[in-house]
Amino acid sequence: MGKLKIVTIGGGSSYTPEIVEGFIKRYEELPITELWLVDVEAGKEKLEIVGNMAKRMVKEAGLPIDVHLTLDRREALKDADFVTTQFRVGLLDARAKDERIPLKYNVIGQETNGPGGLFKGLRTIPVILGICKDMEELCPNAWLVNFTNPAGMVTEAVLRYSNINRVVGLCNVPIMMKMQVAELLGADGDRVHIDFAGLNHMVFGLNVYLDGENVTDTVLDKMTSDDNKMTMQNIKAMNWEPGFIKGLKAIPCPYHRYYYKTSSMLEAELESADNEGTRAEVVQGVERDLFELYKDPNLAHKPEQLSKRGGAYYSDAACSLINSIYNDKRDIQTVNTVNNGAIQSIPNDSAIEINSVITKDGPKPIGIGDLPVAVRGLVQQIKSFERVGAEAAVTGDYNTALLAMTINPLVPSDETAKKIMDEMLEAHKEHLPQFFNKVEA
Amino acid sequence: MGKLKIVTIGGGSSYTPEIVEGFIKRYEELPITELWLVDVEAGKEKLEIVGNMAKRMVKEAGLPIDVHLTLDRREALKDADFVTTQFRVGLLDARAKDERIPLKYNVIGQETNGPGGLFKGLRTIPVILGICKDMEELCPNAWLVNFTNPAGMVTEAVLRYSNINRVVGLCNVPIMMKMQVAELLGADGDRVHIDFAGLNHMVFGLNVYLDGENVTDTVLDKMTSDDNKMTMQNIKAMNWEPGFIKGLKAIPCPYHRYYYKTSSMLEAELESADNEGTRAEVVQGVERDLFELYKDPNLAHKPEQLSKRGGAYYSDAACSLINSIYNDKRDIQTVNTVNNGAIQSIPNDSAIEINSVITKDGPKPIGIGDLPVAVRGLVQQIKSFERVGAEAAVTGDYNTALLAMTINPLVPSDETAKKIMDEMLEAHKEHLPQFFNKVEA
Amino acid sequence: MGKLKIVTIGGGSSYTPEIVEGFIKRYEELPITELWLVDVEAGKEKLEIVGNMAKRMVKEAGLPIDVHLTLDRREALKDADFVTTQFRVGLLDARAKDERIPLKYNVIGQETNGPGGLFKGLRTIPVILGICKDMEELCPNAWLVNFTNPAGMVTEAVLRYSNINRVVGLCNVPIMMKMQVAELLGADGDRVHIDFAGLNHMVFGLNVYLDGENVTDTVLDKMTSDDNKMTMQNIKAMNWEPGFIKGLKAIPCPYHRYYYKTSSMLEAELESADNEGTRAEVVQGVERDLFELYKDPNLAHKPEQLSKRGGAYYSDAACSLINSIYNDKRDIQTVNTVNNGAIQSIPNDSAIEINSVITKDGPKPIGIGDLPVAVRGLVQQIKSFERVGAEAAVTGDYNTALLAMTINPLVPSDETAKKIMDEMLEAHKEHLPQFFNKVEA
Amino acid sequence: MGKLKIVTIGGGSSYTPEIVEGFIKRYEELPITELWLVDVEAGKEKLEIVGNMAKRMVKEAGLPIDVHLTLDRREALKDADFVTTQFRVGLLDARAKDERIPLKYNVIGQETNGPGGLFKGLRTIPVILGICKDMEELCPNAWLVNFTNPAGMVTEAVLRYSNINRVVGLCNVPIMMKMQVAELLGADGDRVHIDFAGLNHMVFGLNVYLDGENVTDTVLDKMTSDDNKMTMQNIKAMNWEPGFIKGLKAIPCPYHRYYYKTSSMLEAELESADNEGTRAEVVQGVERDLFELYKDPNLAHKPEQLSKRGGAYYSDAACSLINSIYNDKRDIQTVNTVNNGAIQSIPNDSAIEINSVITKDGPKPIGIGDLPVAVRGLVQQIKSFERVGAEAAVTGDYNTALLAMTINPLVPSDETAKKIMDEMLEAHKEHLPQFFNKVEA
Repeated sequence: MGKLKIVTIGGGSSYTPEIVEGFIKRYEELPITELWLVDVEAGKEKLEIVGNMAKRMVKEAGLPIDVHLTLDRREALKDADFVTTQFRVGLLDARAKDERIPLKYNVIGQETNGPGGLFKGLRTIPVILGICKDMEELCPNAWLVNFTNPAGMVTEAVLRYSNINRVVGLCNVPIMMKMQVAELLGADGDRVHIDFAGLNHMVFGLNVYLDGENVTDTVLDKMTSDDNKMTMQNIKAMNWEPGFIKGLKAIPCPYHRYYYKTSSMLEAELESADNEGTRAEVVQGVERDLFELYKDPNLAHKPEQLSKRGGAYYSDAACSLINSIYNDKRDIQTVNTVNNGAIQSIPNDSAIEINSVITKDGPKPIGIGDLPVAVRGLVQQIKSFERVGAEAAVTGDYNTALLAMTINPLVPSDETAKKIMDEMLEAHKEHLPQFFNKVEA
Repeated sequence: MGKLKIVTIGGGSSYTPEIVEGFIKRYEELPITELWLVDVEAGKEKLEIVGNMAKRMVKEAGLPIDVHLTLDRREALKDADFVTTQFRVGLLDARAKDERIPLKYNVIGQETNGPGGLFKGLRTIPVILGICKDMEELCPNAWLVNFTNPAGMVTEAVLRYSNINRVVGLCNVPIMMKMQVAELLGADGDRVHIDFAGLNHMVFGLNVYLDGENVTDTVLDKMTSDDNKMTMQNIKAMNWEPGFIKGLKAIPCPYHRYYYKTSSMLEAELESADNEGTRAEVVQGVERDLFELYKDPNLAHKPEQLSKRGGAYYSDAACSLINSIYNDKRDIQTVNTVNNGAIQSIPNDSAIEINSVITKDGPKPIGIGDLPVAVRGLVQQIKSFERVGAEAAVTGDYNTALLAMTINPLVPSDETAKKIMDEMLEAHKEHLPQFFNKVEA
Repeated sequence: MGKLKIVTIGGGSSYTPEIVEGFIKRYEELPITELWLVDVEAGKEKLEIVGNMAKRMVKEAGLPIDVHLTLDRREALKDADFVTTQFRVGLLDARAKDERIPLKYNVIGQETNGPGGLFKGLRTIPVILGICKDMEELCPNAWLVNFTNPAGMVTEAVLRYSNINRVVGLCNVPIMMKMQVAELLGADGDRVHIDFAGLNHMVFGLNVYLDGENVTDTVLDKMTSDDNKMTMQNIKAMNWEPGFIKGLKAIPCPYHRYYYKTSSMLEAELESADNEGTRAEVVQGVERDLFELYKDPNLAHKPEQLSKRGGAYYSDAACSLINSIYNDKRDIQTVNTVNNGAIQSIPNDSAIEINSVITKDGPKPIGIGDLPVAVRGLVQQIKSFERVGAEAAVTGDYNTALLAMTINPLVPSDETAKKIMDEMLEAHKEHLPQFFNKVEA
Repeated sequence: MGKLKIVTIGGGSSYTPEIVEGFIKRYEELPITELWLVDVEAGKEKLEIVGNMAKRMVKEAGLPIDVHLTLDRREALKDADFVTTQFRVGLLDARAKDERIPLKYNVIGQETNGPGGLFKGLRTIPVILGICKDMEELCPNAWLVNFTNPAGMVTEAVLRYSNINRVVGLCNVPIMMKMQVAELLGADGDRVHIDFAGLNHMVFGLNVYLDGENVTDTVLDKMTSDDNKMTMQNIKAMNWEPGFIKGLKAIPCPYHRYYYKTSSMLEAELESADNEGTRAEVVQGVERDLFELYKDPNLAHKPEQLSKRGGAYYSDAACSLINSIYNDKRDIQTVNTVNNGAIQSIPNDSAIEINSVITKDGPKPIGIGDLPVAVRGLVQQIKSFERVGAEAAVTGDYNTALLAMTINPLVPSDETAKKIMDEMLEAHKEHLPQFFNKVEA
C-alpha cells in the first residue's frame, strides 16, 4: 500500500513504548512504514532512551517499520499521514506547579479542567497551533490525533484558531470506564456498550447496554454499593452519595469527583501534597524508574511498571482510532470532535467527547439529543472555561485569562482567582511569551 | 370600562402598601374597580392590619376602588383580571431556617438560587400550582404576576407543570440596576437603557446605552473604581475584581456576588449570622416595626420605613407591568417569561429574565442571540437547578431533590448536600407534604 | 433463544415471498419461531394464496418457523417482537385513483409526496394508529417496522400521534441508489458508502465514498453523462441537467425528478396514463400474474417475475434492519427515524431518513450538521406537507387537508388544490370515515 | 446637534420626491443638514430633473437642508450618517426583460423572488457590495437602508459578503398590509398591530390585534369574503380559496399569490403582457409622465400621480426607520435584519423580515418562536433561493446560478431553468461582468 508515515510529537514521553506496542500488534491491518519520534532540545536525552527502546521493540517484532528520532519537527511532518501529540510544555515540573500553587489558596489544581489546566492550556495551545501551521504546509491531509491535556481545550483551540479540520482529541477515560463497568457486570468488555457524551474529563455514561439490553439501573445500583468506586489511578477513590447517583441516572466519570465532591477532594489533595506529593511529583518518581528500565539494552517490550503511570488503554485508544481512520472501519469509538448538533445545548462548532462512527473521513458523532438536564450546567461551565481559556492562550490577554480562572467551577471567588493567576503567571513566565512579550511591547 | 379586578395572594405582606400606592398613582390609566387581598388563616391578623391600611390609602386618594380582605382564595379569584402572588409559605421563620441551616455546613443559604431557594421552591411550588388550578377554573383569562421567590424556579414550574400560560415572573433587580447605573452615569433613569438577559437573580446587563449611545465600557470602568459597588440592601457590598469585570464585558447583578465571590460572601454571611442575624432575622424586626406603624388608624400613606424592607421599585415593576398589559402599551420591560429562542443556549420552553415588549397578549422577548460565552455555564447551571428543583417539588422525590441540591453551584459536595438536605427536610416537614405523605403511603 | 415472533400486517401482499425469502436466508442469525401473516377480510383470498406459498418456502428450507395466516390482528400482535406493515387501504384501485384524479387537473398524483400521497396518508394513518393502540396493549416492547407509503408521513404520524416510540420507517430507495452508484463506479456495493440524509422519497446522497475515499465528484460526472440515469422501475428515466447537478453537489434520489423536472414528468405521466396506464394499473397486471404463479402448489421459491414489481432490495432493507435490532449489530443502515438534531433545519421531533447505527435500542442517527442550503427549502416543504397531512388524517378537518394539498410542491394553486381535493374526497369516501362521519355528527 | 448627512443612491429615481417629502415632514425630529442625491452617468438627466424638484420642495418648506446632486458616489458617502439605496441596474428596460423572458417559457418572471428577481440580484449585488466597500472606508458608522429589490437577497448578500453590519432592508408591504387590514376592520391604522414574520415579499401576518385584542379570525373571515382581496397595485387581485386561508390561520402577503396561485397568476401575467404590457412596461409610461411633471419649475410638492407608481407608504417606511434609529425611539417597525434566533427554522445569520424594536443600535427583532408549520417550507425555499442566488452573484459561477434558478418555486424543471438562464444571461450580459469576464479570463 505504499507509505504510511506516523509522527509522534513528544516522542520522548515515557508513554511511547505503549503506543509502539499498539502499532506492532496491529501491523497487519496498519502497515506503518515510518514512525517519527519528535522532541525538543530539552527532551533530547529522554527521546534517545525511549527511541532506542522503540527501535528494539520493532526489531524484536521483525517488522519493517523505520523508526526515526529527531528534534526537527518540520522534517518529521513532511508528508505525514498521522500526527500524534503527547508533549508537555515545561515537563512534569510545570505540572507540579499547576497542582501546588492553587493548593496554597485552598483550591484544587486539576491539570485539565481546573486552574492547573488553564495554565497547561496557556502553555500548550500556542505550541499546538504552531504544529497546525506546519501541518497546513507540510502535510495538509494528515490527521492530528491529540492526547496532550487539557485535550478538550486544546481540541477547541485547534477547531477555532487553526485551519486544521482533521483533528481528533483522544482520552483513555471512556475505555477505562467501559472496562470497569464490564467488570461490575462480570462481563467481557465487548459485550458492553455505553452511550458516552460530554466533554473531555467531563464525560457521562448515559446508558449502559449489556448484549444490547439497557442495564443502566443495575450499573447505578452496583456503583453505589460500598466497594465499587470506579475511579482512576490518579484520582482518589471516594464513594458517591447513592441518592445523588440515582437521581442523576447517569454514570459520572472519575474526574467528576472534583466537581461533585469538591470539598472532600480538596482535603485529599492537600493531604497528598503534604505526604507522598502531588500527582506530578509521584509521577516524576515513576518516570525516573521507567527511564532507568528503558535504558536497558536488553529490554524490548513494554515493562509492567508502565501501568503505574496511569495510561491504561491509552495505546488502545490511539491505535484503534488511527486504524479505523486508515481502514475506514466505521466502528464506534469515543472521541473529541466537533459537535455539529450531536449535543443540543453545546454550540455546533465546539469540541465535544462523544461516541462516533470512525471513517476515513473522520469521526461522525452519533447524536444524543441532549444531556440530562441536571448536568448541562456543569458541562456548559467547563465548555465556557475551555473557550475563554483558549481565547486567552491565543490573545495573551490578562483579563481574559482572569475571566477563565474566575469562572472555573473549582475557584471560589474572583479575588482568589486573581491571586492564583498572578502567582502562576509568574511561575510559568518562561513558557507564556504571549503574556509577557506583550507587556514589554 | 367596566370591571377591573386585581387579586393579591399573600395580601397580608408588609409590601402591600407599596403596591397599593402604585395602583393609586396609575388609577387614571388603570381604573381598578376591585382589589382583593387574600391570605391564609395564619396570616389573618396581618391581613387585617395591612388591609385596613390599604382601605385608608384608597379612601384618602378618593378613588372608587373596592378593597376586599378574605381568607377565601377561590372567592377572590372568581373572574379576576390579574392575580399577583407575594406569599411566603412558612413565613419569615421558614426563611430564617433556609439561611441558618446551610451555614452550619459552611454553605450560603441564599433564599432564591441557593440551598435555601431550593427549599423555598419545594414549599412554594405546590401552592402556586394549586392557585393555577383554581385560576384555570375561576379566571382562565387572568394574568398571573408572580413575585414569590424563587421567582425563576416558580415561573419555570408554572410553565412546565400547569396549564396557565399567562404567567409573568417579576423582580425589582433590573430596575434597580438601571437606576444605579444611571446614577453612576449622572443621568436620569429614563435616558438609560440596558439590555438585560439571563435568569431571575442571575441576570446580566449586556449593554448600556445613554441616549442610545453604547456606554458599556464607561460603566464597567466606573463600576470597578473604588467606591462604586452597585448592590442591594440585602446583599453585602463588595468590590468586584476589576480585571474580572473587564474581561466579562457585562454587568453582573448584585446576586452574582454569591457565585463569583462565594468564599468571601460565605464569610460575610457567617459573620452576620453571629451578629445582627441573617437577613430573615433582620427583616423580622423591620416587619414588626412596620406592622406597628400600619396599625395606626391615622396612617393613610406608605411610610418611609418601608424602604428598609428592600423592595425598592417593587411597586414600579408590578404596576407598570399590569398597566402595560392592560393598555397594550408595547413598551419594554424586563420580565421572567418563556424563552422561545430569545437566548439560544437556554431551552425554548424554559423561563428566562429578558427585556420584552409588553402587550395585551403578554411579554414578547427581544432576542439577544446568546449570552456571552463566559457566563453561559453558570446561567445554565442555575437553569438546571431550577428545573430539577421544580421537578422535585412536584414529584416529592428525595433523590431528585438531592440532585438539585448537589448541582447547586454553592454546594461543595454530594455528602454536604445530603447533610443539608436531610436537616432541612426535617425542619420544614410541615410544609413539605409531598415528601412525607409519600413515605406513609 | 426462546420465542421470536414476527407479524406482517398486509401479509397477503405480493411482496410477502420476498420478505419470507429474506428471513429464510438469515435464519441462523435470526431464528424466527413464528411468522404471522395478517390481512383484512377483503384480502382473504390473496392472504391464503401467498400464505400457503410462504409455508411451502419455509418447508422447503427445512426450518422450524410456524407460519400463521389470520384475519385477527389482535391475536397476531399478542407478544410480537417485530411488526411489519405493508398494507394498502383500498388496494391498488385506490392507488389508481390517487394517480388518475390529479392528472385530470394536470397535476402529478405521486403516491407518496404528492396529492396522491396525501390521500394515501389520509386513508392509512388512522389504520396505523389503530395498530399502534393494539401494540401498546398487546406487545408494548415490539418494534414497528413500517413500509406502508407514504412512509415519511406515516412515521411522522406515529411519532406525533401514538405512544409507540419503537417505530422505524423503511424504504428500498437508499439501498438501490447505493447499488446503482456502485455500478457507475464499477465496484461492488460493499466498497461504497453514501451519506444519505433527507426525508422519505426526498433523500439525498451527500457524499459518496469508495473504499473510504470521497468520490462524489466522479459520481456526479458519471451521473450527468448521457447514459446514466439512476432511476427506479416506477419512475421514468430522464437525464438531469448537468449544470444543475454539478451546482447541487449532491445526488438526488429518483423521486426528485417529480420536483426538479415537474413539467416533463407531468407530460410523461399523462402519456403513460393514455397508453399503458398509470403505475397502479400496470402493477395490477403484474400482481394478477404473480398471484397466478403463487397458486402453483409446486412453487416454493420467490419467482423471477416478482422483480418487475419494483421492490428490489425491499427484503434486504427489512430483514437487515430486523436482524441488526435483534442482534444489536451496530452497523449502519438508512432508515426513517426521529431527527433529534441530526439534520439541523428539521425539527428535532420529526421523522427523517438518515444513516443510523442500528442497535437493539433502535436506530441512532449519525448527524450531518445540515443539508446543503439549496435543498433545505424543498425538504422543508415536504416535511410541512407531511405534518399538515398527518394532522388532517387525525382530525378529519377539511381545511387542514386543503392546506396540505395546497402547499404540496406539485400543486400549482389553491383553486386547483380544492378541485382535486373535492373529487378525491368523494372518490375515497369509503376509506375516509374521519371526514364523513364528522359531517353527519 | 451638528451635522446629519443622508445619501440616497439612485437619487434620480421617480420615488425621490416621496422620500424628500417624508424628510420635510419630520424635520423637527430629524434635522437633516445635507441630502446627497447620487446617480450614475446614464441617469444624469433624471437626477437633475428630480434633484431640482427636491431643491424646490426644501426651499418651499423653508428648511436649511442642503441638497447636493452628484455622480461622484465616494464624495457623497464621505462621513454620511445614513445611506439609502433605491437604484436599478439596467433601469426599467432590464426589468422588462426580467419579466418578458421567463414568460416565453410559461414561467412568471417576478422581479424579486422569481427568475426575474434572480437576475436583478445578479446585477445588483456586485454594485451594492461595492457601495459597502466604499462605506467601510468613508463612513464606517453609517447605516445602510436598502430598498433596492430583491431586498431579501440583497440584505442577505450584504450580511454574508460585506463587512457592513449596519444594514436594514426595507419594504412597504407590511405597512400596506396593516393599513388594508385596518380598513377591513373599519379602524384607524394605529389601533391595529400585526405580528409580521417571514422574508421580504414572503412575509406573513401571524396575528392581528385591534386595541390589543387578538382579532385574527375576524380578519381571516373578512379576507375570504367576496370583495376583500388585499393586494397591491402591481399584483393582480385574485380571491383566496377560503378553506385554504382558514386552514393557514395566517395572513399571506400580496406576493404570496405568485406561489399559492401560480397557474392563475401565470395566466394573468401572460394576458397582461399581451395587452397593457408587463408591470415594467406600464411603469415606464407612468415614469415618463412623472418626469414631465417634475420638470415643471413651479412644482414644489409631491404630485398626486406618484401614487400610481406603486410606492404607497414607501416614504413612511424609510423616514420612520431613519427617525427611530437617529432618535433611539425604541418603537416597533417591520424590517429586514439578521435573524439571530427570532425565527427558529431560519439560520441565525440569515436576513428575515420581522417586527423589531428600532434603536440607535439598530433593529432588535422580537422573536416569534417559529413560523406556522405549513409555511416553513415555502419560506425556506425562498431563503435557499436567496442564498444560492447571492452566492452566484458574488462568484459568477454558472452552475450556482442555474441551481438558484432551478430551485425557485416558480420554475417547473431543470431544463426550463437552463433555457431561461441562458437567454437571460445573454440579454443582461452588459450588467453581468462577473459571469462574462470570467469566461474570457
